[in-house]
Amino acid sequence: MTELTDADNDQDRAVTSRRHFLRSGAAVGGAALAGGLAGISEARAEIDNLPPNVPEWMKAPGDPMGSQLYGAPSPFEKSVVKNIPKNLPQYISASGRTPLQDLDGIITPNGLFYERHHGGVPTIDPAQHRLMLHGLVERPLIFTMEDIRRFPSESHIYFLECSGNPVYKKPYGKTASDLCGLLSCAEWTGVSLKLVLAEAGLKPEAKWIVAEGADAAALTRSIPIEKCLDDAMLVYSQNGERLRPQQGYPLRLLLPGFEGNMNVKWLRRLHVTAEPAYSREETSKYTDLMPDGSAREFTFYMEAKSIITRPSGGQRLGSKGFHEISGLAWSGHGKIRRVDVSIDGGKSWQEAQLQEPILTRALTRFRLPWHWNGEATTIQSRAIDETGYVQPTLAELLAVRGDNHFYHNNAIWPWHIAEGGEVTNAANA
Amino acid sequence: MTELTDADNDQDRAVTSRRHFLRSGAAVGGAALAGGLAGISEARAEIDNLPPNVPEWMKAPGDPMGSQLYGAPSPFEKSVVKNIPKNLPQYISASGRTPLQDLDGIITPNGLFYERHHGGVPTIDPAQHRLMLHGLVERPLIFTMEDIRRFPSESHIYFLECSGNPVYKKPYGKTASDLCGLLSCAEWTGVSLKLVLAEAGLKPEAKWIVAEGADAAALTRSIPIEKCLDDAMLVYSQNGERLRPQQGYPLRLLLPGFEGNMNVKWLRRLHVTAEPAYSREETSKYTDLMPDGSAREFTFYMEAKSIITRPSGGQRLGSKGFHEISGLAWSGHGKIRRVDVSIDGGKSWQEAQLQEPILTRALTRFRLPWHWNGEATTIQSRAIDETGYVQPTLAELLAVRGDNHFYHNNAIWPWHIAEGGEVTNAANA
Repeated sequence: MTELTDADNDQDRAVTSRRHFLRSGAAVGGAALAGGLAGISEARAEIDNLPPNVPEWMKAPGDPMGSQLYGAPSPFEKSVVKNIPKNLPQYISASGRTPLQDLDGIITPNGLFYERHHGGVPTIDPAQHRLMLHGLVERPLIFTMEDIRRFPSESHIYFLECSGNPVYKKPYGKTASDLCGLLSCAEWTGVSLKLVLAEAGLKPEAKWIVAEGADAAALTRSIPIEKCLDDAMLVYSQNGERLRPQQGYPLRLLLPGFEGNMNVKWLRRLHVTAEPAYSREETSKYTDLMPDGSAREFTFYMEAKSIITRPSGGQRLGSKGFHEISGLAWSGHGKIRRVDVSIDGGKSWQEAQLQEPILTRALTRFRLPWHWNGEATTIQSRAIDETGYVQPTLAELLAVRGDNHFYHNNAIWPWHIAEGGEVTNAANA
Repeated sequence: MTELTDADNDQDRAVTSRRHFLRSGAAVGGAALAGGLAGISEARAEIDNLPPNVPEWMKAPGDPMGSQLYGAPSPFEKSVVKNIPKNLPQYISASGRTPLQDLDGIITPNGLFYERHHGGVPTIDPAQHRLMLHGLVERPLIFTMEDIRRFPSESHIYFLECSGNPVYKKPYGKTASDLCGLLSCAEWTGVSLKLVLAEAGLKPEAKWIVAEGADAAALTRSIPIEKCLDDAMLVYSQNGERLRPQQGYPLRLLLPGFEGNMNVKWLRRLHVTAEPAYSREETSKYTDLMPDGSAREFTFYMEAKSIITRPSGGQRLGSKGFHEISGLAWSGHGKIRRVDVSIDGGKSWQEAQLQEPILTRALTRFRLPWHWNGEATTIQSRAIDETGYVQPTLAELLAVRGDNHFYHNNAIWPWHIAEGGEVTNAANA
């Protein structure tokens, strides 16, 4: 910022100003504000002729009411869109990532929610859509969307994450989105799956439910019955409005904390069985080939994880002095208990602030006030969840699992900050 | 729903099915499920030839990745848009309402967030935008958006409501949106105003801050210093992404619980003063002309309120039997403690379930399971907040305040349900 009067000629007052922020900032941040906002008021000479002058956009009426019946972001934010990796086969591994480095808070707006589909996005008429529930049940049933909407509803904020987020091999993504953008969080509304199953009546031998999507891939996954009778939901709304087509309109399965692809979109069938289906997506895909040649399968829960989103790869610190380190932490197993941040390449760790409310199986925003001294360094975060699990390093993960697969990489991710302020993916060094 | 086999010929099993839901529903809902889902399986003969048949949209790949870099709702939801009242003067009382009756949960998606502006929506280049902080401060300051973003941040879910929501005179709106759609809720991210003020240093005689927007109306409101030093924020993001233009891009004031227009959008100036400005929007507008000719002014906080959004005006109950009553409650003074629902025209009241988490100055979703016996009746809700304040009836409010003004109507709102299931605004009868 710029002092409105005499700023450049009054060093004492400038120093006082920094000390002021130092005091108040310390009350908020609790640590690491030594140096205050040093650097924040540099290179602002050009603004002195602006306010209180009247800018152009105050001199005539703006856009009239109704120019957008369904709103859109500012034209100045047109670069904040889904991040679509090049060279991914369109109908096999297509994915569009959330631009994590451009977002704040924990809610992902529906327009930027990550997407991942295996046969394209179907356009489904909700009046024609049906959900069939059959197999090891007393009363096989077919539901219309109207039927589903008549059940008692519930709403919860949960994250969703693709299990291939990120890969294990170099080159790793340049930005937080490249690396970890198959991750989003929303408020979901729907009906408890347990309630719907009670309507059909499970037979005693029911141990799995095979869920099938109404897309061209007929994506199919087997869900253990315990999860179906716990917090699983049939979801029709996301952040207040009906699901977007990319998120399964008009109906998807929501399995809080489970890997993304199991949350079957465009849900058309629940087949109650005694054994899993061993479908393509749980055998050739979404399993981890271990160094001994065996495969980890049916891993379900996403382990505790975190990533710093600001500053992160592709960004640049404009000056020394105060910067807030901010990021996201989450765990498929429940609530985040603590996030540690290191600003010295992992030698020491400081506890970050967690933004309330801390919700189970939702993203949690963490923050650490930081005074950057202008020297090259590496920053990183590690999450600890309510089970006591600590997010591992990539080296620890590779030592156990090898890199002969694509999934379930929840390693700590370091960002390198160069003397000039450029932030890059330290794991690519 | 339809039983998959023999449904029409097996009355006993159909009855069993209803009892099943009755039991499980009671466990969830806790009350009022007598009769279960009676009526839900009527008129479904036409679906028997659909699943497990393969619908059209599974027979060819769907829309490819990247067809929407910034997503949009399904074409089947094209009627769910902002609700713009006819005949409102474009640049004086323009408003676009949230379609409350079509939404679930508490988060309003940014595309459907209500808007209200007095001089149109300016298109502001964030690189050119400045915030001036001056008046009774030690160090007048000018901030760029980059400066603002460097402060420590925080995120909170808060509602916003226009103080003219709804009016006092007939005819009242037909739908929940017509009546009460100048109401929305989002996760906001920004910086504590208290922290920014500390940077400038308040003088002892500072009692008010006059906030000015950079729109053609230069909308101006006076904020008591106590609120500025409490939970007031300078906000740049909403539901994760940057503010929409209609919500004040690139910067707005956010005063949790205060009437909507005080949350000045396109914020360009904070003038610290000893007295309020007595601006147009706090004298000729947004004050309540009382029966004795005096004016209530500077009322600030929105009182506790609630509305049933489903079923609500313009909707229709398709059959007798189980229906969930669902709605929203909120209070500018803090958390919602309890919501009561009456299904008999106000003769008796039942306590509704509140969806967790219950957050201060945010919308709270309430729900009541209900068995409709098919007879005409009137339903309504009343909110009680953590201060113990009880939402009044319209008659109580009119007896005290009269109807010679437009603002601060937080009355209980009744919906009439006809024998045929049509829902209308009971206050228009």
